[in-house]
Amino acid sequence: MPKLTKSLLDIGLTGIAFESVQDADGSLPLLAPMSIIAGRIAVQIGTNLLHQPAGGKGKLLGGLPATERGKVIVFGAGAAGRNSAELAAAGGANVVVFEKRQDRMAQMMALGTNVTTLYPYEEAVAHELRTADLVIGAVLVTGAKAPHVISRDMVREMEPGSVIVDISVDQGGCVETTRPTTYADPTYVVDGVTHFAVTNMPGAVPQTSSHAICAAILPFVNKLASGKWRDNVPLARGINVENGQLIHPALKGMV
Amino acid sequence: MPKLTKSLLDIGLTGIAFESVQDADGSLPLLAPMSIIAGRIAVQIGTNLLHQPAGGKGKLLGGLPATERGKVIVFGAGAAGRNSAELAAAGGANVVVFEKRQDRMAQMMALGTNVTTLYPYEEAVAHELRTADLVIGAVLVTGAKAPHVISRDMVREMEPGSVIVDISVDQGGCVETTRPTTYADPTYVVDGVTHFAVTNMPGAVPQTSSHAICAAILPFVNKLASGKWRDNVPLARGINVENGQLIHPALKGMV
Amino acid sequence: MPKLTKSLLDIGLTGIAFESVQDADGSLPLLAPMSIIAGRIAVQIGTNLLHQPAGGKGKLLGGLPATERGKVIVFGAGAAGRNSAELAAAGGANVVVFEKRQDRMAQMMALGTNVTTLYPYEEAVAHELRTADLVIGAVLVTGAKAPHVISRDMVREMEPGSVIVDISVDQGGCVETTRPTTYADPTYVVDGVTHFAVTNMPGAVPQTSSHAICAAILPFVNKLASGKWRDNVPLARGINVENGQLIHPALKGMV
Amino acid sequence: MPKLTKSLLDIGLTGIAFESVQDADGSLPLLAPMSIIAGRIAVQIGTNLLHQPAGGKGKLLGGLPATERGKVIVFGAGAAGRNSAELAAAGGANVVVFEKRQDRMAQMMALGTNVTTLYPYEEAVAHELRTADLVIGAVLVTGAKAPHVISRDMVREMEPGSVIVDISVDQGGCVETTRPTTYADPTYVVDGVTHFAVTNMPGAVPQTSSHAICAAILPFVNKLASGKWRDNVPLARGINVENGQLIHPALKGMV
Amino acid sequence: MPKLTKSLLDIGLTGIAFESVQDADGSLPLLAPMSIIAGRIAVQIGTNLLHQPAGGKGKLLGGLPATERGKVIVFGAGAAGRNSAELAAAGGANVVVFEKRQDRMAQMMALGTNVTTLYPYEEAVAHELRTADLVIGAVLVTGAKAPHVISRDMVREMEPGSVIVDISVDQGGCVETTRPTTYADPTYVVDGVTHFAVTNMPGAVPQTSSHAICAAILPFVNKLASGKWRDNVPLARGINVENGQLIHPALKGMV
Amino acid sequence: MPKLTKSLLDIGLTGIAFESVQDADGSLPLLAPMSIIAGRIAVQIGTNLLHQPAGGKGKLLGGLPATERGKVIVFGAGAAGRNSAELAAAGGANVVVFEKRQDRMAQMMALGTNVTTLYPYEEAVAHELRTADLVIGAVLVTGAKAPHVISRDMVREMEPGSVIVDISVDQGGCVETTRPTTYADPTYVVDGVTHFAVTNMPGAVPQTSSHAICAAILPFVNKLASGKWRDNVPLARGINVENGQLIHPALKGMV
Repeated sequence: MPKLTKSLLDIGLTGIAFESVQDADGSLPLLAPMSIIAGRIAVQIGTNLLHQPAGGKGKLLGGLPATERGKVIVFGAGAAGRNSAELAAAGGANVVVFEKRQDRMAQMMALGTNVTTLYPYEEAVAHELRTADLVIGAVLVTGAKAPHVISRDMVREMEPGSVIVDISVDQGGCVETTRPTTYADPTYVVDGVTHFAVTNMPGAVPQTSSHAICAAILPFVNKLASGKWRDNVPLARGINVENGQLIHPALKGMV
Repeated sequence: MPKLTKSLLDIGLTGIAFESVQDADGSLPLLAPMSIIAGRIAVQIGTNLLHQPAGGKGKLLGGLPATERGKVIVFGAGAAGRNSAELAAAGGANVVVFEKRQDRMAQMMALGTNVTTLYPYEEAVAHELRTADLVIGAVLVTGAKAPHVISRDMVREMEPGSVIVDISVDQGGCVETTRPTTYADPTYVVDGVTHFAVTNMPGAVPQTSSHAICAAILPFVNKLASGKWRDNVPLARGINVENGQLIHPALKGMV
Repeated sequence: MPKLTKSLLDIGLTGIAFESVQDADGSLPLLAPMSIIAGRIAVQIGTNLLHQPAGGKGKLLGGLPATERGKVIVFGAGAAGRNSAELAAAGGANVVVFEKRQDRMAQMMALGTNVTTLYPYEEAVAHELRTADLVIGAVLVTGAKAPHVISRDMVREMEPGSVIVDISVDQGGCVETTRPTTYADPTYVVDGVTHFAVTNMPGAVPQTSSHAICAAILPFVNKLASGKWRDNVPLARGINVENGQLIHPALKGMV
Repeated sequence: MPKLTKSLLDIGLTGIAFESVQDADGSLPLLAPMSIIAGRIAVQIGTNLLHQPAGGKGKLLGGLPATERGKVIVFGAGAAGRNSAELAAAGGANVVVFEKRQDRMAQMMALGTNVTTLYPYEEAVAHELRTADLVIGAVLVTGAKAPHVISRDMVREMEPGSVIVDISVDQGGCVETTRPTTYADPTYVVDGVTHFAVTNMPGAVPQTSSHAICAAILPFVNKLASGKWRDNVPLARGINVENGQLIHPALKGMV
Repeated sequence: MPKLTKSLLDIGLTGIAFESVQDADGSLPLLAPMSIIAGRIAVQIGTNLLHQPAGGKGKLLGGLPATERGKVIVFGAGAAGRNSAELAAAGGANVVVFEKRQDRMAQMMALGTNVTTLYPYEEAVAHELRTADLVIGAVLVTGAKAPHVISRDMVREMEPGSVIVDISVDQGGCVETTRPTTYADPTYVVDGVTHFAVTNMPGAVPQTSSHAICAAILPFVNKLASGKWRDNVPLARGINVENGQLIHPALKGMV
Repeated sequence: MPKLTKSLLDIGLTGIAFESVQDADGSLPLLAPMSIIAGRIAVQIGTNLLHQPAGGKGKLLGGLPATERGKVIVFGAGAAGRNSAELAAAGGANVVVFEKRQDRMAQMMALGTNVTTLYPYEEAVAHELRTADLVIGAVLVTGAKAPHVISRDMVREMEPGSVIVDISVDQGGCVETTRPTTYADPTYVVDGVTHFAVTNMPGAVPQTSSHAICAAILPFVNKLASGKWRDNVPLARGINVENGQLIHPALKGMV
């Protein structure tokens, strides 16, 4: 057991973890703003990495007369993936979203007629990647390592100068070739494909991030301060330690 | 010289031909409503010919979760082609418009982010046709036979169960395999591809056609009835015969 | 008791019926893709049946200058009705949706400013039908026969050459004059109104239907294969027979 | 000849009239901002006159569940009419625009799928008015009195509590029952129909009007100040008097 | 205890209050239509109160060339606030919505790119109000008096000729300077700012209100009439008195 | 006279300059594709320069709940400026376009309700710049040096970490602090404001640029090759030298 955890147990603290606060429908309200931001950052940066001076194939995603629209593939239609798809679609790219849930697919298609949703059969993924310009990994399995939906072989088949931005890097990455980087040295190239996998992507826009997270957390702070927070589902679910006991299921599994 | 023409010359009639009335920018105001209607009819019928009971490949053009959007290719972005592209895009298909004029390409792209415009290089045309579901020919060269932008070889490379609707059939067709048909027996199959090339397509919707053409023609009728129509550019351009002379350039060329 | 049911009970099978799998909110995830497709097919076919060569009144639904927009009436705003309304609205028709639920009415109005929602008072229905061009029946009462929201008298009052497509035919039809047809002989005329009531409408687009249904069913198959499916609400609700007992409420009522 | 005109001729002034400045395509750039504003004001005020405390029929134009959308009829699709149609359509009403020019009809339909355009046949006008909630007159014939497109008999057939806003009042009004009013006493009732016909409607929003007109006029002022304005088509066309002569055609006709 | 309440208890009536009928998610289905209408009425009237003849600053909310867009601030994103924001945004204003819930903020932003959402920090509210043209109060705390989100000091800092419409007036108003008015004398001025705070705003459009409320209530009436309504959550929650007992929590608190 | 020019005159060549080909309305069809691309590149790069690791203020332009939308100011609404405004608006920023022509202002406002147009009064420019995040210079005066619409003093008043992208750099720049850079070292900082002023911005996307320019030039090449190009207005206007004479007005002025 980590020392910090032990200390919290020893003093009998009721500890609610920021990242464990969870709505009844399973969503994570305090992480959502950061996912939204990461999703948008991924498109902004990916778009620029396609420029030739940045090592890209020299292609504009948005459509203009007599040119093909660029192709953006997004894996996962959660908060991050949805925002990537939305911004890429607004910019005029052809967007393909791989997702398993029918309701989320319908949400993605409502973003624009240039958004197509597909089920992530392995062959379908491999097939689409061959003509992709920008690939965004946004697969999140709550409390688990992200699965590798893109294999090293698939990366090898991509066009040189293409770009992969892996938002899932914080959970280990959903691309086999992903390894975490920082804004100091954000990219590396594998088989001719530029990889961007900075951990904590929202760190690029601290002004925006601060405003967004602050507004998300304040109602919960008010609830806590009122003293009457036990009937608040998200806070109650977020309890990690209490009365010297490990409470949260994920914590129990880790010890 | 045709007998009718000769008679008109003999009686010294000032004859304005319906189809020769022409705006200063070259457009044909009395033909435009029929082109709009033909453009929309082409998509409505082409969509249904893709149904399997009608001999098609059994594919829905509009997107729904976990399926590719159908691909519609339109040749020409005049009044007919623009309406075909607009209706196909509204229905959720991926639309590719082949066109040479930059201003028209921009207009087409404004119809939706699912519309792409390309220059009709022969290889580009051949390449796109291989994955097309519905192809609409709407190439019009005023006063001339439509060029064959789709060759027989290209048709052969299309997927079985695909559909070609050739609106240009009234000018001879812009597809090499086009031959005129009627609503009594509207389609035929060449190399597995269904062809629909009914002449006078707007005849399918006489109620709509009558209202549209009537409103287009009335201002010109009023002008004629007023007696002061000589300064009206479209009418003046539309004069075919006058004072026993052939006036219209196209007529002169024919005699 | 049907012989098949009895056999299943005798062998003690745990049988989950495809059409009984049901989400917590009452929706039917494995039927939804077919409803979406049927809703779109209904508009595609109905649009063409309005053409004069097909026996229709010869009217284009989509608007063009100087003509009235066609009027499409949809009964029911479930998955099928919603898709009918969406495609008809995209094509430019005036769309009226009869529906009782406030939330669904709001969803329908969000499809476009050319969509109006009304409560199905009998007089309102009769009044609207008199000026309808295309009527789509998409009333579904889960596990029950569809009610007749359109009576024979109302059909008699419709304009000749109008069209009724009754998607509800699989549950008996929501129009009094509906009788099931097939794609081999899909239409018949009652009082001058063309009826299209093919059972299993999605059969017209097998390519699309296969992809859609496959993606919808796969997550449940995976769940079943994992062995841990008892806590999956939709699957658990879908159990029809188990341990030699009839389990599903609908089945019990039938025996 | 009016005294002022005579004085200008006597002193040999080169006088350009504000309202005579005219683009090559016949539009009036210095009047356009006021037309835009009047078009929007007409909808804002008409909407409120439909409220019951204001004497109206007590109906909301915008759609909400289970209610009909209100019906707005606009006569004329110039700058004023276009803005009326745009704002009414944005607010969710069903909008019918009567107009004779095909290009303007197409522009109106592009404002939204709830906009229909019709040719102003007398019977069509009478028919539509019977179910209208708000009628906006925006017919302008440059340099002439507006024609009466709505007769007194048609007004009599309208529903009590309906509203007519006649922007054309500055040219005499396009409704037979129009008579000019002021913001001090802006409305009157004829046959149960509220009439609003304030001359100089933009006077209600002087802040907005000032900014708009100022930006429109400044490029011309700069041109004048530069001394090199003779080759500027709109200014040259706007000359009314020069070298002691009446120059403008409209002025000549008046003397 | 009010006399009426006592009488209902004495006769043992099972009494369901119209305004207590409540969905599982806390929404009030029989009040919703009135909130939607009030939200739209607030914008319609507020827009006109900005006209100079009505005492306003003489500014058009919707954008036109070379003028700033007007600024509308909405407090609360429930049914009323959402409709205010939607209509103001459709009309072209810059709209700022103050709201605490993340999900509702996202819904508001989906109304248009001219909608911004902010958390109601006191300084943020004060800052935004200084440049506001139209302010709409739509804060509703179910079963409680509305909080004063706008103080008298903030009103004093607003520009003269600005407008406040306080829909919350029925719960006491969310603006410190609000006092209830009627349609007979609907407005008053405080510190140069026009206040409109008519109670029962939907009374202005009785035709629309009647249709909307009727359609909302009918399914519940049918349920009641069927005799099997006990399992209907909204109706069961709406019981106020039964068997001579006060049932509803709000009623208990009041006695 | 430059040596090259003299040689061309000596050999009597008929020389048409690429950049002089000009449509009847004054637009430059062969330069337009590059302007479109530059306009989009400017937003893509400017967006990223606002990231903190790139030296920016750390702000996201697109809106998300509880945060202000970023502010983008565009100078000039030609092909480049229009595309900058369009992409920035699509991404969710508040966009202000400074422009003098009324028709172009109207086009800009049609891009979205988050686009405002203003006349470039010096005080208005200075006022707006103080709260700008991203400023894009796209002022082009055909055949002349771009005017300095943004002075050094105005730059000094901007917030630190803001960004200026000056597309006009190819004509000398429309910002007083602009000096040309290259993709090798693209930015520099003046008074805390990042400047990006790479000449030939479209060089970043050679793949897209090649396709676009090729399609634009091909119709003219065909015309030239046909031998019958004298009646082609754009080509005729583009003649620079012929029969040993300087023909183009701009050339004459330079000698």
